[in-house]
Amino acid sequence: MYQRILVANRGEIALRIFRACREMGIESVAIYSEADRGAHYLTLADEAICVGPAKASDSYLKIASVISAAEVGNVQAIHPGYGFLAENAHFNEICRSCKIDFIGPSPEAMAQLGDKNTARSLARKAGVPVVPGSAGVIETEEEALRFAHEVGFPVLIKATAGGGGRGMRVAGNDLSLKSALQQARNEAEAAFGNGAVYLEKYIEHPRHVEVQVLADQHGAAVHLWERDCSTQRRHQKLIEESPSTSISEETRQQMCESARNLILTAGYHNAATVEFIVDGDGNFYFIEVNARIQVEHPVTELITGIDLIKAQIRIASGEPLWITQDQVPRNGHAIECRINAEDPARNFQPSPGRIEQLIAPGGFGVRFDSHAHAGYVVPPHYDSMIGKLLVHRATREEAIATMLRCLAELKIEGIKTTTPLHREILSHTAFVEGRIDTTFVERTFMGQ
Amino acid sequence: MYQRILVANRGEIALRIFRACREMGIESVAIYSEADRGAHYLTLADEAICVGPAKASDSYLKIASVISAAEVGNVQAIHPGYGFLAENAHFNEICRSCKIDFIGPSPEAMAQLGDKNTARSLARKAGVPVVPGSAGVIETEEEALRFAHEVGFPVLIKATAGGGGRGMRVAGNDLSLKSALQQARNEAEAAFGNGAVYLEKYIEHPRHVEVQVLADQHGAAVHLWERDCSTQRRHQKLIEESPSTSISEETRQQMCESARNLILTAGYHNAATVEFIVDGDGNFYFIEVNARIQVEHPVTELITGIDLIKAQIRIASGEPLWITQDQVPRNGHAIECRINAEDPARNFQPSPGRIEQLIAPGGFGVRFDSHAHAGYVVPPHYDSMIGKLLVHRATREEAIATMLRCLAELKIEGIKTTTPLHREILSHTAFVEGRIDTTFVERTFMGQ
Repeated sequence: MYQRILVANRGEIALRIFRACREMGIESVAIYSEADRGAHYLTLADEAICVGPAKASDSYLKIASVISAAEVGNVQAIHPGYGFLAENAHFNEICRSCKIDFIGPSPEAMAQLGDKNTARSLARKAGVPVVPGSAGVIETEEEALRFAHEVGFPVLIKATAGGGGRGMRVAGNDLSLKSALQQARNEAEAAFGNGAVYLEKYIEHPRHVEVQVLADQHGAAVHLWERDCSTQRRHQKLIEESPSTSISEETRQQMCESARNLILTAGYHNAATVEFIVDGDGNFYFIEVNARIQVEHPVTELITGIDLIKAQIRIASGEPLWITQDQVPRNGHAIECRINAEDPARNFQPSPGRIEQLIAPGGFGVRFDSHAHAGYVVPPHYDSMIGKLLVHRATREEAIATMLRCLAELKIEGIKTTTPLHREILSHTAFVEGRIDTTFVERTFMGQ
Repeated sequence: MYQRILVANRGEIALRIFRACREMGIESVAIYSEADRGAHYLTLADEAICVGPAKASDSYLKIASVISAAEVGNVQAIHPGYGFLAENAHFNEICRSCKIDFIGPSPEAMAQLGDKNTARSLARKAGVPVVPGSAGVIETEEEALRFAHEVGFPVLIKATAGGGGRGMRVAGNDLSLKSALQQARNEAEAAFGNGAVYLEKYIEHPRHVEVQVLADQHGAAVHLWERDCSTQRRHQKLIEESPSTSISEETRQQMCESARNLILTAGYHNAATVEFIVDGDGNFYFIEVNARIQVEHPVTELITGIDLIKAQIRIASGEPLWITQDQVPRNGHAIECRINAEDPARNFQPSPGRIEQLIAPGGFGVRFDSHAHAGYVVPPHYDSMIGKLLVHRATREEAIATMLRCLAELKIEGIKTTTPLHREILSHTAFVEGRIDTTFVERTFMGQ
């Protein structure tokens, strides 16, 4: 086992990893930017090294500085957390060449799954359903129409160079497909200098359901059930829960087993999340693999009792999996609300600044993971998430009641947070009845 | 089910009950003394009524004021918490005569178990072992010697009017018994105006192990396993845990079943704790019943997943027990550390005052139940406990590691707390190995 680990991240996930290290008797080395200098959570590491100025590209994202800190800190391994360098295969490779263990998959597995086409091919190979898509770039209107008639309308036009919704259009019939094709090409050309597009079947009323997998370096893997992350705003997850209300028990078993197969087929080790889209009829389709720990991992920790950060460290150090699939528990219902320093009344614009007062909820079944406290100054440079409020109860109904109690109790003064939106969502009939898809929040609360 | 409940208590247990009420959709009415006016935790009740000045005997203990608050607050039931009026059978009776449900046992069951002699008789009747004691008051040296030779030395001399250790002596042989008898009588006479004493076998290396029981009003009862509270200082519990390391699995089953039988024999309903003393050979003896919720109840909540406050409310309202004995779970290991506003360096003198900063630990398996926060002023008038830090992990070893991590993380500035003592205890080999009895803390850390 490692004696010393560098945590190449900041905020709550850095704190989460320091905590796991301390409990395992491993020393942790923190890195920080000038904007995070003096933050209380850094005192929970055994050493803290400055890696540069506030701007992430000059500090947390700067590979040379992070590697240099790892060498100064004399660590045997690096935990990348999520975001920043967590899915950077190049960084992963550099760690290897410096003989520092990367707590995550191999660079090869990361690169392979990071490419959407390769990942889709792997999924097909593993017998995992994928969203029906055109074989490659669509060149002509005729090709587009042929594909649409084959899979059925509506279809989604996507730019191959795409991202952030640009060059993306939905078409419901022949006529709209023709015009949307032209619009998408023009938009993609303008945005990326590349007008190439391809087609996918558009999944209506989509649910986002993902499966947590753990795989060791010796060919064993287990899934740790699913998380439903359909409560989103602009592709940003707001609320995650497990079990999912969107799928039947049969679908759950199939989906979880599919995810496990995919990870085994990919020769992947460490923690991974396999993301699926679920349609209104409960059919599921593979989307992508997140080759890292996720923000919402504590949801899975609550229902399984398995510490995922400790598991990542144990696996990276070479330990074989200590549980088999039928030993993975599934108890009760867990919900997470992401508390972001954003102002819901002002289109969720970031609300950095000094937290004058913070009183966290507590009691039965409550977990609050946060690096924030009364007096903490939220810097304007990074992700706006300042805490994850989680509950774990026997039933979903009770979990919602506990979460509403906690949201009423959570007091954060000095900055604006997403707490009021969470209260609205959790009180809404559609959420309470589990009738949610990824468009629910925007349709219901954003006047869209 | 009730619509409105008065919580006849303050601080963390009042907050605990407000939380349960809110989750159950029940309105809660708080009472407060002038010393607690404006405390944040009171805002988590639906209404708050002042019951008098700071002095507990003029407010929280003043039955007329509490009953009046219940009537003004228009409640159907009163939850007494622990301490104050929680075991006052007279108050319990007055509630009944005012047609307000007392969330606890009947006044009769409370009075019966409140009398140590009646409780011992009941225990014998239920087949529960009790510490061997003299039949009644010891009048002569000869009687004392006869009892001592019958049960074996050492023996404990106790004042019938006793309390607080006064009139109490341990004797190891004939000679010391004679002199100790005289000393105990003199001390009891001076302290209570009553020199009557009785004898008990003195249990060496005593462990304090107690069993949580829930009984409904329809004749059903379940035990919720045991808690080990051997880590004490001057009969004040410091650390509680479950399962106990002091007993074998066989003893656990016998002890828990004994406790359940006793509660059934007593015709008792609601939550009760049956306290036992365990000797070095693993024999257990009944001591007393606590006819109320205990400070350390969350230890049991963690290992069973059963919400004891909600259970109390459901039982008081007449609901039959919803689980059978074989459905009561027992998962992992839980530990609680009581965080008191006391200065361990100054003989644990109370350390009231303003908490300038409070940063609570969080993360996997951590629960912090506290009404305190940055800016909270600990009043000098009441119990010094300001929070309960709890952990729940798969094993005791992991639970200790997590608790040590949490104690290192807990930051309370402005007042002194017992946190440093907890760190010492949890790091001590005897504690880690589970070799503790009720004298451990004083022997090891108090220079006694």
